[in-house]
Amino acid sequence: MPRTLAQHVFRRLQQLNCHTIHGVPGDFFLRTLDHVTTSRSKWIGNANELCAGYAADGYARTVSQLARHRSKDMDPSPMIGAFMTTYGVGELSAINAVAGSQAESVPVVQLVGTPSSKPMRQQDPSRLVHHTIPGRGMDVYSEMVDHVVCKQAHLRLAKNANDAAEMYDDALQTAIQRSKPVYVTLASDMVDLPVSTELLDDPIQVSRKTLDAGLVQDIIKRLAQAARPLIIADALSYPFGLQAGVNELVRLTNIPAMSYTSGKGIIDELLPSWSPDMPNTTEYSRNCDMVLVFGPLPSDTNTSRWSAIPQTENVISFNLDSVELSTMEGRSMVESSGREALAQLVATLRSDIELLKRVRNEAVENNKTIPQKRQPPSPAQSTTQDDFWPTMSTYLKPEDTLLFANGTPLIGGRALQLPESCQVVASPIWNAIGSMLPTAQGIAAAKRDHQLPGRTILFEGDGSFQVTCQSLSDIIRYHLDVTIFIVNNAGYTYERYLNGMQAEYNDVPAWRYVDAASFFGAKSNDPSYPVFTKRLETWGELLEVFADEKANDGKGLKIFDVVMDPQDVPEAAKAGLRRASEALKQMRGR
Amino acid sequence: MPRTLAQHVFRRLQQLNCHTIHGVPGDFFLRTLDHVTTSRSKWIGNANELCAGYAADGYARTVSQLARHRSKDMDPSPMIGAFMTTYGVGELSAINAVAGSQAESVPVVQLVGTPSSKPMRQQDPSRLVHHTIPGRGMDVYSEMVDHVVCKQAHLRLAKNANDAAEMYDDALQTAIQRSKPVYVTLASDMVDLPVSTELLDDPIQVSRKTLDAGLVQDIIKRLAQAARPLIIADALSYPFGLQAGVNELVRLTNIPAMSYTSGKGIIDELLPSWSPDMPNTTEYSRNCDMVLVFGPLPSDTNTSRWSAIPQTENVISFNLDSVELSTMEGRSMVESSGREALAQLVATLRSDIELLKRVRNEAVENNKTIPQKRQPPSPAQSTTQDDFWPTMSTYLKPEDTLLFANGTPLIGGRALQLPESCQVVASPIWNAIGSMLPTAQGIAAAKRDHQLPGRTILFEGDGSFQVTCQSLSDIIRYHLDVTIFIVNNAGYTYERYLNGMQAEYNDVPAWRYVDAASFFGAKSNDPSYPVFTKRLETWGELLEVFADEKANDGKGLKIFDVVMDPQDVPEAAKAGLRRASEALKQMRGR
Repeated sequence: MPRTLAQHVFRRLQQLNCHTIHGVPGDFFLRTLDHVTTSRSKWIGNANELCAGYAADGYARTVSQLARHRSKDMDPSPMIGAFMTTYGVGELSAINAVAGSQAESVPVVQLVGTPSSKPMRQQDPSRLVHHTIPGRGMDVYSEMVDHVVCKQAHLRLAKNANDAAEMYDDALQTAIQRSKPVYVTLASDMVDLPVSTELLDDPIQVSRKTLDAGLVQDIIKRLAQAARPLIIADALSYPFGLQAGVNELVRLTNIPAMSYTSGKGIIDELLPSWSPDMPNTTEYSRNCDMVLVFGPLPSDTNTSRWSAIPQTENVISFNLDSVELSTMEGRSMVESSGREALAQLVATLRSDIELLKRVRNEAVENNKTIPQKRQPPSPAQSTTQDDFWPTMSTYLKPEDTLLFANGTPLIGGRALQLPESCQVVASPIWNAIGSMLPTAQGIAAAKRDHQLPGRTILFEGDGSFQVTCQSLSDIIRYHLDVTIFIVNNAGYTYERYLNGMQAEYNDVPAWRYVDAASFFGAKSNDPSYPVFTKRLETWGELLEVFADEKANDGKGLKIFDVVMDPQDVPEAAKAGLRRASEALKQMRGR
Repeated sequence: MPRTLAQHVFRRLQQLNCHTIHGVPGDFFLRTLDHVTTSRSKWIGNANELCAGYAADGYARTVSQLARHRSKDMDPSPMIGAFMTTYGVGELSAINAVAGSQAESVPVVQLVGTPSSKPMRQQDPSRLVHHTIPGRGMDVYSEMVDHVVCKQAHLRLAKNANDAAEMYDDALQTAIQRSKPVYVTLASDMVDLPVSTELLDDPIQVSRKTLDAGLVQDIIKRLAQAARPLIIADALSYPFGLQAGVNELVRLTNIPAMSYTSGKGIIDELLPSWSPDMPNTTEYSRNCDMVLVFGPLPSDTNTSRWSAIPQTENVISFNLDSVELSTMEGRSMVESSGREALAQLVATLRSDIELLKRVRNEAVENNKTIPQKRQPPSPAQSTTQDDFWPTMSTYLKPEDTLLFANGTPLIGGRALQLPESCQVVASPIWNAIGSMLPTAQGIAAAKRDHQLPGRTILFEGDGSFQVTCQSLSDIIRYHLDVTIFIVNNAGYTYERYLNGMQAEYNDVPAWRYVDAASFFGAKSNDPSYPVFTKRLETWGELLEVFADEKANDGKGLKIFDVVMDPQDVPEAAKAGLRRASEALKQMRGR
């Protein structure tokens, strides 16, 4: 049987480790969906398109886990997320998720099923097609999405079906090489066009592996001269494939290592030179004379309003396609794979014992310990943010994936002490409330597709949950393993500290979260998909849950409705929130 | 106390009959929200931004009801919807709703709270602000939304605060005059700037009232010559203010009158010459020699794949700013208010008895009757689409607002026989599933704000409900009066007929809809907000509900979970669905 264009589309995604297509069906591509199955891919039909976009983003974010379990060297397998929506109404509903993938460098392909080639070429004003905007042309949506993707491919513009397939391959290659989202339209009349089966034998080129000859020597020279070097791991280390290398660098050199807010989890927290503090809060890091920063995304929310960015001008930043070297004299950008540069840096240090001795920090004491069970105040006392997060550390296990929703989970989550090989997913710049529940769904799907170990644990806000709650239905429908702690504090607590501590606009209504699984369709007592759900108002109830294996095993769905005071935030966060509030107030008047 | 810019913003909206601002709070405009209250407007905090955008659209759609209850002449009061979101993540999540307002000509203002003026002028790449996309500039979102709004106003670009207020007023005026959405950004440092209180004394100019001198004479001449004229009322008659006039025209002339799918409800169905059939299905309309069409939006979904568009070349279309006259020789567009032309046409017919006699159709027999209670098959038998819709007619009351979700409700709803003064809200071209629940929320808010009579009754699909379910929480939180019939047929039944009758991708999971009110936070036995919720599987259960006053009174929230077969559609719709399916199949291959 000859291969169809649609089959080519899905087979290529499999080669990039995407085995599940997310999306919401639409009339323009129902036939395309038939080919998901004939290509032996899987379909997850989400309740809405925004959830599908976030889920595809989450799927791609498991690349670092895939890399750890697939290969022993530092070169990770490629991984892309994919979702499919209908033209117009579908794609626009997901555009916020695509923009987030762009902002946070996640490779995702958005497939859009459009009307057939003829109306796409020219809309007849007396024969309007649904999902169009009269007078705005048929390309209006691709013009909108162009602002947030790095490449587009409109397959109907290709000369023939094989060219269309190659146009598509080219888009995927760009997505992977640049770690950004791309946008592909498939007109409804093209789905079944035959394409050459041999096209798939030519693999997508994953990386450009450029490495500037003198770059690593420069880095080593500056590192050897530094008296107080500091390593900062930030969030883009995951998509840029820097995680294995930076851990090896820290392990070899013992150079003090930290992260910005959302860079947590990149460096193994049991390594002796790791510090959980922010870079602006310790004596060493405040006075460091050199910084090696990996995958930086220095937004206000990620860096305590930029206060965590070290003062030194002596900075080397490792990015995807470039390494930036800053000195007091200025900045220079070297076009080079950050991963390759890091790999060669590590290799050089490994092979040159004298050099390593010079660079290695011997002053660091290994005082890391496994988190101990804390004795909370008393069983009847309410849970507080200051006690909850450190206590949660004892719930964690190696290989867990932890997601921190924006708001108090992102603030409080930094106090978790992580076992080895945990991945943290936290938004460094996009900070869209509601993104993390569907992201968790996508991660759980990827973990299942690739048999990756560890639980998927989401620390969710109640306001966040309400934005994308229907994603829970997707989790239940496809029997995905997800554990959710909902911080139920009756509103946008983070925002209360900025303006309107008592204001009604910062409240959210009280949902019955313990009924969520049942409402969204989970069966009771289904051995193939166990559901555990509990409201936790006191310490006693929380500790009881910790002791219950059924609450810990990561199997099926767990929902913990953790009740906290609406005005409670971790004590350590209050100063930062006050600063942010002041900054907002000072903006008034010009 | 001097007025602030934010207060000016909300007071202006009140002048345009918008008393409720919808939205989701964000840190960049919390302070602005304080001024909703100080301006004596109301705030409805939606669970997510897409729902807020649809709700604002729904709010504005009550303009025809407001007009009916405010004034005796044909000149309706202006009405605008408004919602507010945060920069980037918030506004992009709502962009699909704004595009829908654009496609279906609904005047809505999207207010966006942005970072302060300084970072908006120039983003410092080493001090990134959250909700931005590195490298894409600060104006990227306004560039995206520009494709779907008719005007933008960035208040920070004004010379001073009074100019900013006038810039805003200008945007509102454009929205009202063109009946389209506009987009306004308010930087966080501008909220409290003082503006002149006198600005509000100058009212927004609502309409341009242009009328071409010879136009109505031309229309009358052609009308008098026609042997078989036909009137078609379509969906845009509502926003273009044509409803009162077209009813008067039909009443005066008895010219046979019909509507396309979503034009239902515009013409009083008890008028003698009204016919509920589509224009391609009766002998008279198939052979008409002239068509007067009001507010047309001739999409495939609205016109049975264009087959309902009459064959005659002799057509006069009444639009917002133009009247289009077509003959065999070609088309001419006259710049003129459609509403003014219609008003003058009616006035001329009223004053010229001889003319009216010539035009008036005396052949029409008044055979309209009030819907009678049908005797359904037997109490134990399942409800079917073919029996459900006509039977529902007996549930309806004058002044009800009926919303038909896309899918089977939009198909089946045509079979309802409407009492007088019912408004139907059905999507003529945008056809986004999930739009109607939040639209109903916005309509219910407007009805309460303006003390408009009648219930808000939504005929929802299960697939649609799942897209925007959290809107039910908004309805409950603000104690809005909404009645919902969920057609629970386990999936996208409309799409099953196009492709994949049994395909899993056309299924949606089984939610426990009768638990929805409780899950989303409704109190049980709250006399201030009664909740009635019931699963209806048989005819007996449905008729029991019809007999129960508590299920009929439109007070509080009612949810009826009406179970139907996944493959059941009205018999009359099958031919059309087969045609649509064939059209999709023929598109394959090129």
